[in-house]
Amino acid sequence: MSTHGAGGEFAAIARYFRPLAAAAGRNLLDDAAVFAPPAGRELVMSADTLVAGVHFFADDPADAIAQKLLRVNLSDLAAMGAAPLHYLLSLSLPQSQTHNAESWLAAFAAGLAADQESFGITLIGGDTTSTPGPLSLALTIIGHVAPGQAVSRHGACAGDAIMVSGTIGDAALGLAARLGKLADPTGDLVARYLRPQPRLHLARADLVHAAIDVSDGLVQDIGHMATEAGLTAEVLAASLPASPAALAAGADWLMTRATGGDDYELALAVAPEHIAALTAHAASLGITISPIGRFLSGPAQVILRDQLGADITPAHTGWRHF
Amino acid sequence: MSTHGAGGEFAAIARYFRPLAAAAGRNLLDDAAVFAPPAGRELVMSADTLVAGVHFFADDPADAIAQKLLRVNLSDLAAMGAAPLHYLLSLSLPQSQTHNAESWLAAFAAGLAADQESFGITLIGGDTTSTPGPLSLALTIIGHVAPGQAVSRHGACAGDAIMVSGTIGDAALGLAARLGKLADPTGDLVARYLRPQPRLHLARADLVHAAIDVSDGLVQDIGHMATEAGLTAEVLAASLPASPAALAAGADWLMTRATGGDDYELALAVAPEHIAALTAHAASLGITISPIGRFLSGPAQVILRDQLGADITPAHTGWRHF
Repeated sequence: MSTHGAGGEFAAIARYFRPLAAAAGRNLLDDAAVFAPPAGRELVMSADTLVAGVHFFADDPADAIAQKLLRVNLSDLAAMGAAPLHYLLSLSLPQSQTHNAESWLAAFAAGLAADQESFGITLIGGDTTSTPGPLSLALTIIGHVAPGQAVSRHGACAGDAIMVSGTIGDAALGLAARLGKLADPTGDLVARYLRPQPRLHLARADLVHAAIDVSDGLVQDIGHMATEAGLTAEVLAASLPASPAALAAGADWLMTRATGGDDYELALAVAPEHIAALTAHAASLGITISPIGRFLSGPAQVILRDQLGADITPAHTGWRHF
Repeated sequence: MSTHGAGGEFAAIARYFRPLAAAAGRNLLDDAAVFAPPAGRELVMSADTLVAGVHFFADDPADAIAQKLLRVNLSDLAAMGAAPLHYLLSLSLPQSQTHNAESWLAAFAAGLAADQESFGITLIGGDTTSTPGPLSLALTIIGHVAPGQAVSRHGACAGDAIMVSGTIGDAALGLAARLGKLADPTGDLVARYLRPQPRLHLARADLVHAAIDVSDGLVQDIGHMATEAGLTAEVLAASLPASPAALAAGADWLMTRATGGDDYELALAVAPEHIAALTAHAASLGITISPIGRFLSGPAQVILRDQLGADITPAHTGWRHF
């Protein structure tokens, strides 16, 4: 673990992060981690950065920030059908005191430790630096998959059903609740925004043609699948699976649910003959999957339709940075 | 490549970063990269983040920023004796226009492309996000090494010579020149600050007991080797190899050279019987190595001595963030 720092920083790393490190991380004392990759497997790697004020609130609970960071990256492995193994973590701590206080670091590390246990992963390296900007967290996740069995976002075929795991839109509603725009009496919506549930082991290459995780918004992410396949994706708004909390929010929030990000559910392209087997496989993992539309020959686009079949696709389909 | 964005961001990634991506990166279109690790090798991975205003100047040339980012990480592989393979890049672009302008991204990508060619590496993934803070660049480097042949920073033995590659202190002097505190008529010092030269393939497990890259400052980094080995490291200030530009700066700058960071040379613990073979190996790579001291039985510490043997170890030995 390269630290580019001294004194308090080294001490904090030793106290909070070394206990999280696998043997491959060499106690975070070396310039790099060393490990033997799993025999006969391909490696799957992804990196996602979360910035305070962009992807989370600086005053979110430290353990929840840690877990969102890990789970957003685990979700990328889930979309590829890969099993998780290790991660590297780069912490950029603001020069102000909030996020490098002992108590904050302890809670952040506790969040990582709990998810290491839940998902069977270990820290192997990374670095810590100071920044004049907001708290910024870069994580690289390492997983593995049988050779040739990685699932991708392209590969959807005309006639495939579009299926999604879990419920759609809760995280966007949780953000609205967090901003005081919506009541969340049970706290379920904010919980979904804070701690997504990566759908590991759901996407299997023998049962799906393509998969993507719903990170930027359902319509936009399914749009990526349509673009890569050169097909039209038709999504039925009334079919979007809703949680009890989302149902309670009401129909006014439908478009928020269809275009909001951060659900980290999987969208899957499934041949009709595989729907039953995939549904049973999902059930064995404790996951409900629901059909929400289909891929059709036609221009590469996504069309959102209401119950009467009218095109209600919004012009703004998801998260946009610039 | 996960993008958490749309529109202009996707277009820029396609234009500038896809040409850099290996097949493993799947054109940066998927949620993660997939590759078969080199057969019979261990993987070596490291992550280092550079933040504008902390590790570089926001108005440094974009191609130099890209190359410093890559080379700082390649230097970690060099310290481990690993050969480079792939990298993932997370770009956090300020919401201001400077660092997401087309011309800036084009020059940044050109810097990456040139170093991909120089060092035989390819981009396989990462992400792009916006930030209200300064430009921030997180890179994860992936390399490989024969099983059991990774070099580490511990392992120095009493009696080992301390040797360093190249010349020491030029980067710190380059920073001083960049700040107007020192003349740099040839531009050599600023060049060393902007573009370090990773000493890949120099540290060989059969010829060195330990290695570390000089990133935070020579005295501090050799201090890490001393701590890990439980030995005293004695460094002779007069032996620090100096470039012509450093000699021209004069003796007043000695302590800056001994404690300044960013050289990215290697410090090596070498048994006396291996000095000749290591020197010949270094020469075959076009690298000069110089003895600067030795490891001795004694308390875990580093002592810097002047020509008369007096202890001139500074209280502040290197870069400190907090």
